Amino acid sequence: MSAAHVPVTAIVTVGNELLCGETVDTNAAWLARSLAALGAPVVRKFTVGDIAREIQAGVRAALEIADLVVVSGGLGPTSDDATKQAVADLLGRRLELDQGLLAALRERFRARGYPQMPSLNISQAEVPEGATVLRNPNGTAPGLAMAADARLVVLLPGVPRELRAIFDGDLRVFLADRFGARLKPIHHRVIHTTGVADSKLAELVEPRRPTDMGPVTLAYLPDLRGVDLRLSSRGISAAEAEPWFARIEEAIGPVVAPWRFEAESGDVVEALNAALARAGKRVAVAESCTGGLIAKRITDRPGSSEVFVGGVIAYENEVKIAQLGVSADDLRRHGAVSEVVARQMALGVAERFGASAGIGITGVAGPGGGTPEKPVGTVWLATALDGQVEARLLSLIGDREAIRERAAQEALSRLFRRVVEAAKA
Amino acid sequence: MSAAHVPVTAIVTVGNELLCGETVDTNAAWLARSLAALGAPVVRKFTVGDIAREIQAGVRAALEIADLVVVSGGLGPTSDDATKQAVADLLGRRLELDQGLLAALRERFRARGYPQMPSLNISQAEVPEGATVLRNPNGTAPGLAMAADARLVVLLPGVPRELRAIFDGDLRVFLADRFGARLKPIHHRVIHTTGVADSKLAELVEPRRPTDMGPVTLAYLPDLRGVDLRLSSRGISAAEAEPWFARIEEAIGPVVAPWRFEAESGDVVEALNAALARAGKRVAVAESCTGGLIAKRITDRPGSSEVFVGGVIAYENEVKIAQLGVSADDLRRHGAVSEVVARQMALGVAERFGASAGIGITGVAGPGGGTPEKPVGTVWLATALDGQVEARLLSLIGDREAIRERAAQEALSRLFRRVVEAAKA
Repeated sequence: MSAAHVPVTAIVTVGNELLCGETVDTNAAWLARSLAALGAPVVRKFTVGDIAREIQAGVRAALEIADLVVVSGGLGPTSDDATKQAVADLLGRRLELDQGLLAALRERFRARGYPQMPSLNISQAEVPEGATVLRNPNGTAPGLAMAADARLVVLLPGVPRELRAIFDGDLRVFLADRFGARLKPIHHRVIHTTGVADSKLAELVEPRRPTDMGPVTLAYLPDLRGVDLRLSSRGISAAEAEPWFARIEEAIGPVVAPWRFEAESGDVVEALNAALARAGKRVAVAESCTGGLIAKRITDRPGSSEVFVGGVIAYENEVKIAQLGVSADDLRRHGAVSEVVARQMALGVAERFGASAGIGITGVAGPGGGTPEKPVGTVWLATALDGQVEARLLSLIGDREAIRERAAQEALSRLFRRVVEAAKA
Repeated sequence: MSAAHVPVTAIVTVGNELLCGETVDTNAAWLARSLAALGAPVVRKFTVGDIAREIQAGVRAALEIADLVVVSGGLGPTSDDATKQAVADLLGRRLELDQGLLAALRERFRARGYPQMPSLNISQAEVPEGATVLRNPNGTAPGLAMAADARLVVLLPGVPRELRAIFDGDLRVFLADRFGARLKPIHHRVIHTTGVADSKLAELVEPRRPTDMGPVTLAYLPDLRGVDLRLSSRGISAAEAEPWFARIEEAIGPVVAPWRFEAESGDVVEALNAALARAGKRVAVAESCTGGLIAKRITDRPGSSEVFVGGVIAYENEVKIAQLGVSADDLRRHGAVSEVVARQMALGVAERFGASAGIGITGVAGPGGGTPEKPVGTVWLATALDGQVEARLLSLIGDREAIRERAAQEALSRLFRRVVEAAKA
């Protein structure tokens, strides 16, 4: 490998609890983010059990593809911690007792009021010959870095706060020193959209995007709430990436504009709350099928009290009549899931709560309650803004949770658009 | 490999978003748990990027060590979805258009009101020759299963709800059929508790549990909502496990009783809704700091309309006064976060909504809004049942989300206990 190329990383996470799925591997994601940001992007991850030959198989495979192999887990003092011995054996290094580390460990126990260190912990002062010790301010297992031919293997403990402290302390300095200018961070530019399917978005975006994307890739990341378009540059500086991002964004910007929103969190509620605050408007919600989800989403965000007055969950028809002023006659004639009821809910809650904006939503979330005319997924959504109501019929798919999530997202997105449009007008 | 051994599994998760750490790989953990429970334990996991040769490298390595290789991610219709073609190429299979799948896809779009299916989605009806199609009730990418010599490769979409639905539907049946008696499932008996810390629970349970647990292990699984005690047997049938489970449950049952609830879903709302239905009672909620979360949790469950009338999200004091009848004088004198206001909220919403039970909750969820007397995490919770109100002060820790989750859980749990106790009296 040339000395100048960007170092690539493989991660090996060790632990039976990861293989049986009891623990979600948050270390792997944290390490990947931190390594990418540092400029040593992760090209593959392995997860193996707490067995020497499994750990060795993982590290051996990782060394075949990466300049840097970061192993986490299995550095504790107990019999199921096999990582250090297994990797030392693989690299042909003996374990040696590090007297400085031993003294520091003893001191740690003394400071915490133990008369003496448990003998089990002595093994934690053993270091593969020639390894660099990376200090652990939060625990007894130090990190270890050692060369393997032209490559580097780093061992970190699996306890997240210990792993993170070592990474952000000694390891970061060690890697910067070792790789120097070869480190080139990954940069992202994310375009958030909501209210459009990823296939539809791709149909519009693909013909528009520049043929030559240079060092930039484009990914479509869909979920129940929308689709993120993510531009990523790899192996160049932020300044070098910027003109590429700008050029691509300029090319595809116009076709995604109808569904786009700006939010650091990726949540349209952030955009909605900001738009309401800018316009000096406040919102109240009247929810039937979403049962509190819209209000919950608005109030998930700190500072929402500035733009959110409150709401009514009108599950029963009596509540729609008494608390929101929906006409009993319209309820009887058109049913609870109807345009006229949604409109009266949105207007009613805005008026009664003294809010300039209102959301009214009523539908069939299922699994029961569907009819041939109003099957499960039928939702009437109304938004009121300064007394002007607009209603639309949604036909949503999925289970109860998906229908509720999609309905809430549509409501929040639609109100966001209306507030933005009104501010322009 | 012998025909009789337990099949072992390797997981390959595909996605640049996993490699750069933007997404935590919850699919891998969910798959690992589900496969272990089914009796096909996971021996290694790989994560690779959205590039054909990377996907092939991961699947090839997985096939070297496992009987079953489960691949997730990269089955969408866009250009960054490379899994199906990559694996088909690796296994030497051509892609063929499946007319039945195509018709079902077109119908899916028609049902959602699209005049026609976007042409990009046609690729999702392409199937490697000889592959078994696993239906996806929640999306457009079907699962696919295909033999590779004596091994089996299964492709699943990366969207969690699609992956889970396929696994729990067609795949489970397919694997049971394919591996038959070689599958040695893990059996669990779970005892749900809420309102008690895991350390306290262990202190009570450990002295009571039988010395000889036979083939059964006990785990404490805490989260924001409570602690599950999970008994697990491995390698024996459900019938063989039953007497062990019964004996252990009998021994520890009495000490966990004060916090225990029964719910297949593990959600105390299931127990609450059932208790309300049995008692012929209905509930209304008045939420301030939880902002709709309690109502959302109750209505998450199908059939909640039987026991849930509705609620008020009284974020602003004016709403507490006008919609719930809270005394303006008490609000001024004691503040919104006070026992008297919580009590009036619970009673007020029950009375105005014609419900026999009411919840009133008001507190400081943070990050702002705390004072020396009422720091972030201070929550007053009141429950009303047939006109009798009970209030308690909660001092909750964590960030905004954790405080809201814990407050909602306490409210739901407390009302559940009261309904159960009232039914006994």
